[in-house]
Amino acid sequence: MDMKEPVNLNAALASFDEIYSPRIVARMNDYDIRIAKTEGDHVWHAHDDTDEFFLVLDGQFDIAMRDTACNETTVVLRKDDTFVVPKGTEHKPSSPGASILMFEPSGTSTTGDRHDGAIPDHVDSTVGHEL
Amino acid sequence: MDMKEPVNLNAALASFDEIYSPRIVARMNDYDIRIAKTEGDHVWHAHDDTDEFFLVLDGQFDIAMRDTACNETTVVLRKDDTFVVPKGTEHKPSSPGASILMFEPSGTSTTGDRHDGAIPDHVDSTVGHEL
Repeated sequence: MDMKEPVNLNAALASFDEIYSPRIVARMNDYDIRIAKTEGDHVWHAHDDTDEFFLVLDGQFDIAMRDTACNETTVVLRKDDTFVVPKGTEHKPSSPGASILMFEPSGTSTTGDRHDGAIPDHVDSTVGHEL
Repeated sequence: MDMKEPVNLNAALASFDEIYSPRIVARMNDYDIRIAKTEGDHVWHAHDDTDEFFLVLDGQFDIAMRDTACNETTVVLRKDDTFVVPKGTEHKPSSPGASILMFEPSGTSTTGDRHDGAIPDHVDSTVGHEL
């Protein structure tokens, strides 16, 4: 058995402070389970080939989405809320402060396959870091 | 946008009482995010083609695993613990009472591709139910 040890989400969250810089807590098949701390505005971006699952562990996490006519919708997510951003959907997370869990294919970039303008300094463009 | 509404895990957990009978709270790509209530012994089983991710939402959830020589190991998981059972690994969950979240390919059976003996009455052999 290629067994890994259990990982506690609270211990994992306590091990780093960086904002919008996901840590990989587990891998299953070719997917990552990642956690992140969020605060402020992310960047408009889209993942062309994958949905993205979010679970809010604490705080509030908002996801603005826009369609091809640039009509915007925002979902406001709080602790224990789950949401899936469909693949190809342009979206911009923002948050007054939260911790979140995400499922996505390994290799998925935090800033998508395409994004608007410059990536802010407080947003880490990454495929996730080891814990 | 083929958008779904957010689902709150606590509201979802409050909507059913059945033990070892997962509900699908979200789908992403060809995967399910499922939740279940657990109590008592599950059945020894294995998923030949997929890992299985567990997150304990509340309570205690134990997973016994055995290798091909039948050497057993048990991991004891509590709230906010995560664990991945590697594909092909024979495992038997048991629990004094817990709520869990699972991530696995859509169509994955709760009793695996193979299992030991009869399936107990309190274990639902299913690929997951709609909320």
